[in-house]
Amino acid sequence: MVEELVAAVGAAHVVAGDDPSVADLCADEALGVPAGKPAWVVWPADRDEVAAVVRAARAAGMSVTARGAGTGLSGAATPDDGAVLVSFARMDRVLEVDPVEAVAVVQPGVPLTVLDAAAREHGLTYPVHPGEQSASLGGTVATNAGGMRAVRYGVTRSHVLGLEAVLADGSVVRTGGRLAKISSGYDLTQLLVGSEGTLALVTEVIVRLHPHLPARRTVLAPFPSADAVTAAVGRVLAAGLAPTICEYLDGPTMRAVCAAADLSLGLPEDLVDADHLLVELAGRRQERVDEDAEELADVLGTLGAADVFDLPAGSARRLVEAREGAFWAVKAAGADEIVDLVVPRSAMAAFLARARAAGDAHGARVLGCGHAGDGNVHLAVFQPDPERLGATLHDVFAAGIALGGAVSGEHGVGRAKAHALETFGDPAALEAVRRIRAALDPEGVLNPGCAVR
Amino acid sequence: MVEELVAAVGAAHVVAGDDPSVADLCADEALGVPAGKPAWVVWPADRDEVAAVVRAARAAGMSVTARGAGTGLSGAATPDDGAVLVSFARMDRVLEVDPVEAVAVVQPGVPLTVLDAAAREHGLTYPVHPGEQSASLGGTVATNAGGMRAVRYGVTRSHVLGLEAVLADGSVVRTGGRLAKISSGYDLTQLLVGSEGTLALVTEVIVRLHPHLPARRTVLAPFPSADAVTAAVGRVLAAGLAPTICEYLDGPTMRAVCAAADLSLGLPEDLVDADHLLVELAGRRQERVDEDAEELADVLGTLGAADVFDLPAGSARRLVEAREGAFWAVKAAGADEIVDLVVPRSAMAAFLARARAAGDAHGARVLGCGHAGDGNVHLAVFQPDPERLGATLHDVFAAGIALGGAVSGEHGVGRAKAHALETFGDPAALEAVRRIRAALDPEGVLNPGCAVR
Repeated sequence: MVEELVAAVGAAHVVAGDDPSVADLCADEALGVPAGKPAWVVWPADRDEVAAVVRAARAAGMSVTARGAGTGLSGAATPDDGAVLVSFARMDRVLEVDPVEAVAVVQPGVPLTVLDAAAREHGLTYPVHPGEQSASLGGTVATNAGGMRAVRYGVTRSHVLGLEAVLADGSVVRTGGRLAKISSGYDLTQLLVGSEGTLALVTEVIVRLHPHLPARRTVLAPFPSADAVTAAVGRVLAAGLAPTICEYLDGPTMRAVCAAADLSLGLPEDLVDADHLLVELAGRRQERVDEDAEELADVLGTLGAADVFDLPAGSARRLVEAREGAFWAVKAAGADEIVDLVVPRSAMAAFLARARAAGDAHGARVLGCGHAGDGNVHLAVFQPDPERLGATLHDVFAAGIALGGAVSGEHGVGRAKAHALETFGDPAALEAVRRIRAALDPEGVLNPGCAVR
Repeated sequence: MVEELVAAVGAAHVVAGDDPSVADLCADEALGVPAGKPAWVVWPADRDEVAAVVRAARAAGMSVTARGAGTGLSGAATPDDGAVLVSFARMDRVLEVDPVEAVAVVQPGVPLTVLDAAAREHGLTYPVHPGEQSASLGGTVATNAGGMRAVRYGVTRSHVLGLEAVLADGSVVRTGGRLAKISSGYDLTQLLVGSEGTLALVTEVIVRLHPHLPARRTVLAPFPSADAVTAAVGRVLAAGLAPTICEYLDGPTMRAVCAAADLSLGLPEDLVDADHLLVELAGRRQERVDEDAEELADVLGTLGAADVFDLPAGSARRLVEAREGAFWAVKAAGADEIVDLVVPRSAMAAFLARARAAGDAHGARVLGCGHAGDGNVHLAVFQPDPERLGATLHDVFAAGIALGGAVSGEHGVGRAKAHALETFGDPAALEAVRRIRAALDPEGVLNPGCAVR
């Protein structure tokens, strides 16, 4: 086998899976997914090398797991034991930014920071901010990553216009293009986005960019309850204010986030433990954003906000960055699992209440924050006992599903939530997914332990 | 067979396919696709009746074609001979408009006008305007319809959050939900959108709504060339003006459209034959839209517009409606085929030039208009000789593909463009599509003559 891999990518780019130098590559950031034991780790340089690796693995009866930056939270980039782990670290170039079409053509190993910086040189931005900007574009395509700005711009799915990808048989498929829209048969682009390396290994991505909006205002509104936050979110969106950020943080999460960032917002002490709504407005012209911020403050005030704090630009940026890094704060605090359920946005408060009740029933502490505009709730669950943790998670998932939700809003299924999806997903939909997977990868080459099996 | 169909939907809702009363249902508006000869036409009342029809047809070895309003332009709703044609005319209810979530839950037979009117009662809108507002929502889901407003709001795909659908084996699948985003396994919602009745019959749709924007301004700018229009479009979008409409009309199309609508815009005669850019801006506040309209006029002026006409609201609405009805105008004028290619938006002028050259080479007249912001060009081709028409279309498709385009931007493949897609599509992508189709419909029950076969 190693001969074929060396032939595919060169001896300098093949390392045995048990080599200590690759230990960090054998897991992603999912809290509950142990590191895998790949047979080999390879670093292809281009599409043809990726295809050669897939063909070699398939011929040898080995599986293939793709890995970007490894910042995923569901274990989709954690290799199966005995797999060939394909790192896209060498395929890290922004091939082109086309300001006329407002698209970029990008290799999968490009970090989001690099893509956004390249876009900004042309007055454009790639607005998908899943919270960890060192994430690779390929990883975000695989998981259909979202993040704070999805409330205005949509998730990764909304931005992917075309793909080049290697299928399980080593063939290369090209989908979409630099095309604003398309209706030319099944949308394979959209099928591959979010398929977590189980249908194809993406080797090139065409993404849509947006004009950068220079004017900004950020407000923080403490509310007496999550119910009040939820109600306010609906009104802010219905008003057409089109926020770029619309986040919920409960009191403990706000404390944890501010502590992690060493940030003092100067809130009165009795308001720190409130349920917080953080809203960012952005636009082309500062005077309009300022006017909208006043309208926003009026709306929030009439809906029960204890106060509406206009955050100075520096504090706003640090708070947003700290909120984006909330995962690291709760990880540092010893969280045992992160939940990423999505529910109808008006059900967020009800879901939080039921999730906390589930925690109480099993002795687990449950902290919440989330993308309130999207109904995408991130819960940190503290319960070190595996059995009680499992019971808590089951009840939390059941509560979200009962409210019309789905097991993951933006982290993906991966290995961490495969069981939850099998338990709570629509049976006919799961069967359809299994058939599609078997049709494109009958031998189970691509990430077999991941997602719907 | 008829007994099973009668058992499924009731005797009052089954008619033999050769009954004169159903003659109008045996084709859609595709110019080049002859009417089919279905064995039976049925009108189910609900999901369970749809499932019973599919099971009965499958058991009898018959195929099933779904039909909404029949306004499609690619023959996807034209039944195969001997098929069971399923009309969704009885499943025409808006089940719910949920203003808090900004979603509607809709049966597939609902006309777009009815959905939009229901949304407007809540200050919301369903902004997909594919040009024929009597189109059914189900039909637009099947074809991933677009239309003028896609430049701002995206196409049907961007609005479908969840589906209930009957698969080829009669099982019922539920996808998505009232969820702003989701990453919980393969996105079956997105796979079914645009699949033209070949993977499932959609029985319920959850769509995203948007706040209605009351303030509007419409400008018409005649340019000396399509090249100049194309360049202007890129600048208008890059400026962040976010037009709701950004349309190109060549001189002959402008004349045909104005004549069909009995509309006089008062343009100087020497400008009527120019290449026109029609731009609509919309927003929450009239003063901002007015300010943007001035900025727009400045941009267009510096880019070579001969003039920039501010259209009064009445004229603007009539021109937009007439442009939306351009298909009927060119059909009345005797067009032999409509082409719906999409190219990168900066390639629109080059494509138009090559398409006209292809027409000249084969003695065909080629008129053009299109969604300039999306690069989606609608060409009317006049050439009654089938062989020369075929040669023209081949060369037109080849020209669009060579520029990075795809065979359809919003009409779909259907029966009209199945050959073009097979000729010009990516071979590996077509093979993947065939596998997926066979995996979900191994017996070829659903619309077998449509799309990739």
